[in-house]
Formats: sequence, structure tokens, C-alpha cells
Amino acid sequence: MEYNKNFYQIHSNDDIFQRIKDERAEIGYYDLPYQDTNDIKNYVATVRQRHIVVLGIGGSSLGARAIYEFLLPSNKYQKDLIFLETVDPLEIKYCLKKLDINDAHFVVISKSGSTIETISLFKYLSTLVEVNGKNCTIISEAKTKLTKYANNNDIKVFELAENIGGRFSVFSVVGLVPLAMVGADIDNLLNGCRRVSDSFFKQKEYYQPIISKARFLVENKARFNINAIFSYSSSLESFNKWYVQLWAESLGKLNINKTRQALTPIALIGPVDQHSFLQLIIDGVRDKTVTFIKIADLKDDTIIPKSSANLGLEYAEGLSFNDLLNKQADATIQSVEAQKDIPCDVITISTVDEYNIAKLMFSYQLLVSTIGQFLQINTYDQPGVENGKVILTNALKC
Amino acid sequence: MEYNKNFYQIHSNDDIFQRIKDERAEIGYYDLPYQDTNDIKNYVATVRQRHIVVLGIGGSSLGARAIYEFLLPSNKYQKDLIFLETVDPLEIKYCLKKLDINDAHFVVISKSGSTIETISLFKYLSTLVEVNGKNCTIISEAKTKLTKYANNNDIKVFELAENIGGRFSVFSVVGLVPLAMVGADIDNLLNGCRRVSDSFFKQKEYYQPIISKARFLVENKARFNINAIFSYSSSLESFNKWYVQLWAESLGKLNINKTRQALTPIALIGPVDQHSFLQLIIDGVRDKTVTFIKIADLKDDTIIPKSSANLGLEYAEGLSFNDLLNKQADATIQSVEAQKDIPCDVITISTVDEYNIAKLMFSYQLLVSTIGQFLQINTYDQPGVENGKVILTNALKC
Repeated sequence: MEYNKNFYQIHSNDDIFQRIKDERAEIGYYDLPYQDTNDIKNYVATVRQRHIVVLGIGGSSLGARAIYEFLLPSNKYQKDLIFLETVDPLEIKYCLKKLDINDAHFVVISKSGSTIETISLFKYLSTLVEVNGKNCTIISEAKTKLTKYANNNDIKVFELAENIGGRFSVFSVVGLVPLAMVGADIDNLLNGCRRVSDSFFKQKEYYQPIISKARFLVENKARFNINAIFSYSSSLESFNKWYVQLWAESLGKLNINKTRQALTPIALIGPVDQHSFLQLIIDGVRDKTVTFIKIADLKDDTIIPKSSANLGLEYAEGLSFNDLLNKQADATIQSVEAQKDIPCDVITISTVDEYNIAKLMFSYQLLVSTIGQFLQINTYDQPGVENGKVILTNALKC
Repeated sequence: MEYNKNFYQIHSNDDIFQRIKDERAEIGYYDLPYQDTNDIKNYVATVRQRHIVVLGIGGSSLGARAIYEFLLPSNKYQKDLIFLETVDPLEIKYCLKKLDINDAHFVVISKSGSTIETISLFKYLSTLVEVNGKNCTIISEAKTKLTKYANNNDIKVFELAENIGGRFSVFSVVGLVPLAMVGADIDNLLNGCRRVSDSFFKQKEYYQPIISKARFLVENKARFNINAIFSYSSSLESFNKWYVQLWAESLGKLNINKTRQALTPIALIGPVDQHSFLQLIIDGVRDKTVTFIKIADLKDDTIIPKSSANLGLEYAEGLSFNDLLNKQADATIQSVEAQKDIPCDVITISTVDEYNIAKLMFSYQLLVSTIGQFLQINTYDQPGVENGKVILTNALKC
């Protein structure tokens, strides 16, 4: 009889760090900060259309969208970036109405080349406008039908490496190509990633906090099974969605002992969700950790003006909206901390630019990889969604 | 010595139903389906501006936004409805750039009249354009500073009753006035509410399922502390946010025994979140219930065309996008049901119109009220957020 199973091993921080370093040789996203972007920059300089339309879903759209919408209110772009994700026909038509299809460039992104939403949308678009090498770019793995189609039709292909999964692909061609097309500074994105990566792999004072946070979340996952982020700026709303995918799809797994692992992400926006979810955090069951994300300086000095209208709240007059936003964040943080028994931390990024959002996102990828090592799961696959795809294929084929 | 406390009483379904009927005499939202809308309709007919701008946050915006965005892709409106919620200055400016401020009508909504986000925004707007009775409408309780301001400046006020809380106010003037201004059929909204209300209060076969669902969620809340909705249409994204507020802020409470109660809402969109959160539902810890929401008929027959491009997935060609969307929902539902141990139900609404979204939303309000009775909480207050407001006020005053 043999009965020797690793039911659960909690590893030392040093051991986990070594495992991440080992993993780095296999998992593609770790190298992305050090890539050469010349091919991308040279190519996008030839794209003349005013609307850039991404056809992609999940990992093929969420990352670029997070960065695009973070920078959007500060007027960084000369062109629109539009995301066609869903197959809801009303939504598709509503989206297409907003753009001039003859002045649009389509970026079709599917790692497998056979994503049913993306390919169906692409077929439909091809009936509305002639698609060719002048108004289309394709991003896929090397050997897919989509890549073959592109090669047969003189459409530029950016190949996505097999060892880069969708939710870890934002700093690959998947994110960089569409972002570069609208004028985002992709080198500064990679600067931010490199800063985080270099620090993490070389400086103990940087990697220890990430590993300690991962350890805390894992050791307390039965009690605190929900991890909320509370982002204080509406421009982080798509970042929030990216976080939810990264966290949920990476960490919801059977581990090597075949036991179910999970940390459940919740993503909130401040101050809006002070008027919604906050009540549940404060008075509800203690099953949540909360990470606040603040932006120190929005570089905007719009002031709440003095008013003679007798509307009250005079004490806020003269303050900038930027200050009000951050003081609201601080007050919420204090009110959560005052509860004493809600695990809570604060991440502050300096300002709204490529460098800072990349730092935030790359750090989150490292945190998720680290949690995955503690949980003893495969952080990079998604076996749970395959059965639904088989059921759908069978339903469509009969 | 006295020691006689109601630590926990689980009530019979009939008892809960009686409590809801008793509550109906006090809580204002139950009567909203039966209100007279003539004053609203007569007034909005006089509003000539092209852009309707709601200044409001939380319960003052989420309900109208849910309905507006649900109907938006089917081109129901002659006018834009824009929501100014946050105090993020970049977001404010970005929002204002999209409209002609001289052709805008501002609907300022604050139940208390002293919501810091809304009042600060209103003061700022008043420096950009002259605000008067011709381009402004105010919705607030009768005795607030905001109402007084309106009366002093000949601005139309719609009074919000004190016994209607923000998150239960969508079918009051808070939701109906802005929706009527852009051309939504508010009488059909109330038809939907009345249909649900009449059935619930008169027909056992209608109220029993709602009470049974509430009972299941409450009796299993320790095991399944997360309640996900999975809405199969992007047009339900704002409905999802409204659900999150309704659920979180109503049900995250200390109950009469001073024990923490909570059911945590998660809101997903299909098929997009098949590529995100679904993995966690399928392979993660069994701590979630899932309610799927489907729309049977989007009244759109756009077809996935035949393609000679050799892109694969030929078996989906000839299908309508509407059918693909619903078949994706069905496949996901089947794959969740196949797990056997994930509590799951399906709500199907007929189509995209006022009547159907109102039925869905009013049903959810009744469900939340019913859960609140089981939990022995006050479903209608939000004491947990007050401390943060005090901290903010003190910080701003010093």
C-alpha cells in the first residue's frame, strides 16, 4: 500500500521566492518587460485610420482596455480605441454606430485563433467592409487558422508566444499593439514593468512584502474568502475588471491535492461605492480583505468654488476636487481601519501615466503568481471553462 | 437577572409574508407602482434641451442608469442621458466635453440635499453655466437646503418621500423624471412593477418561490456567502451595479441580536465573464450561489454569415447572434449544473423593454426585502457608512 501524499505544505517565503524564480524560465510574461518594441512602433506608424477597433474578449481585451481607459480622461490619445467583445447583437450595432467603419482599423486578437465570439464578429464585420492588410492586424499564436488566414491575405500578424496566457498578456503584443496605435507610450509602460520586475527579483525589501501579503491571504483564505480592491478613481474601472479576471481565473483551481482553492475578487470604485458596497464591508460578516488604491496627484487643480447659494457644505469650498477625492479615500480607509478586524492595506500610485499603471498591473501579476505558488495550483490554465465550450460546440453542431 | 433574548428565530414562510405585508404600510417603495405620473409627464414635455445630465450618486443614479443603459442599444431615446457621479476631476471634465453645456438640462438629485459629491459638482457647474428654472430640475426631500434653494430660485422640485430610500427609489421621481425626459415609457415601467406587486401580494404561487429562495439563501449563508448574478447581455451591466448596491447596502447589517449579517453580491456579464470569473465558479471553493439572467428575444436577427475564409467554427455560421448568445448562456448553465453542488437558478425575461426590466428590478427589491425579514435586520438604513462621513467632515473642517 502506498499512501504518501502532499496534502498541504506551507512553504517558507524563501522557498516560494525560489519557485517563482524557477517558474520564470517557463512562463512567458516574466520576460515581457525586456522585449524590443521597434517592430510594433514601426508598424503602427503606418496605420492611418482614426478608429482602432479591437475584436477580442477576456484576456484579449481587458488589459489594453484597463490601460486605455485609465489614461483616457487625461487626453493622451489622438485616436479612439473601441472594444468589440460580446456577441450581443444590439450591443454590436450600437458600438459600430459610433465609428466610421471605412476609417477604422481592426485588430483581431485570439490566442487560439478559434474564440467563437471573436471569429463570429470578424466574419460579420467582413460583410460590412472589405478587410485586408490595410485595415486589419491580427494577433494570435503562430500555428492557428487565424494566423494562416492572415498570411494568405497579406495581413500583418503579431505572434503571441504559447507560454503567455491571455490574462498575463497585457504587456505582450496583445496589449502593446492596440495601445501603440492610439498613441500610448508603450516604452514607458515597459519602463514601469521593468522597475517592478528588477526590484522584485533583486531586492529583498521589495519581494518580501509581496510574498508576505500572498502568505497572509492564503493562510487566512477560509476566514477571508473575498478580496476587495477599492480604487479611488473612475478611470480605474477597467483596471478593476482586469484584476477580477486575473484573480478569479488564476486562483480558482483544484490544487495538486485536488482540493478546491479560491480567493474571490471584488472590485469597487470610490467614492461611488461608498454609496453602495461600503455598508457591507463595515457592518457585514468579516469575510473580506480590502486593498485601497489611491492616485496621489491627478495633476488637475479644479476647485470646488465658493458659492453664495446657501447650499451648505461650505467647508468643502476652496478645496480641489483632487483633494476631496483623496480625503474621501482617507476617511473611508480610516473608517475601515477603525473596525480593527478587517484586514486592509493601501497602494498609492503617483499619477496618471503609463509608467504608474504598468507598475500597478505588473505588481498584481507577481502577487497572483506568488499566491498560486502558495496554493500549489497551476496559476496559468483554466480547465474549468472547457466543459462549457464542449457543451456549446455539441449544441451548435446538432 | 433577566436573560431573554431572541438570538435567532427562523420564521415560517407565512410569518415572513405577513411581516412584508405589515412593512408595506411603512416603507414607501411598495406603493410606487400605483402612483400618478401626470405631473412628471406634463413637466418633462416642457424640457427642450438635448442633453439630460443627472447629478447624483449611489441610489440617486444607479436605478435610472440601469434602465437607461438596458434600453440604450435598442435606440429608444431621442436625447442623451449623462450621469455625473464622481468627484474625480479628470472624469468630470471628460464627461462635460461630451455635451453642449448650453443645450443641457441638469437634474440634481440628493435625498438629503447635502450629498457632498453632488452639491460640490453642482456648485462647480454653476460657474460654467447660469443655472435656473429653465435648465435645472431638483429632486430632494421636502425640507432640505437643496429644496429651499430651488424654491428660492423658481426651479422645479420633485419631492422624494422620506420613507423611500435611495436604493429603493428607482421607480420614484428619482428614476422616473430623468427617464421620462429622454423619452422612456415610464407608464410601462410602472405596468411592470404593478404586475409583480399585484402577483406577489395576491398569489401564493408567485410569493412562495420568492420567499423560498430567500429562505434558502439565508439558511445557507454561512456556506454560500457569495451570491453571483450572471447576466447574459452587456446591456445589463448597469443593472448589475444596481443589484450590487441593493444587495450589499441592504443586507450587510447588524441584526436585532447585534450579530453581523451578510450576503455578498457579485455581478457578472455573459459571455464576457465566461473568459474571466467562470473558472472560479466551476473549480473554486463552493461558496457561491449563481443566478443566471437571460433575455429570450432581443428582436434582432443579425446572422453570423457564411464565410469562405477558412477561419473555422463553420457550425456557428447561419446562426443569429441572438441565438448564439442564448446558447452560450445555456451551455454555461449546463456546465454549472453539471457540478451538482453549486446552487443555481435561471431568470428569463422576455425582451428589451421598459415593462420587462421593471419586472426584474421590482422582483429583486421584493426578494431583498424578504431576505431582510429572515435576517431580522433593518433592510432600509445604512448606519455603517456614517462614520466615514463624520471623519471626512472633521478632516475638511480643520
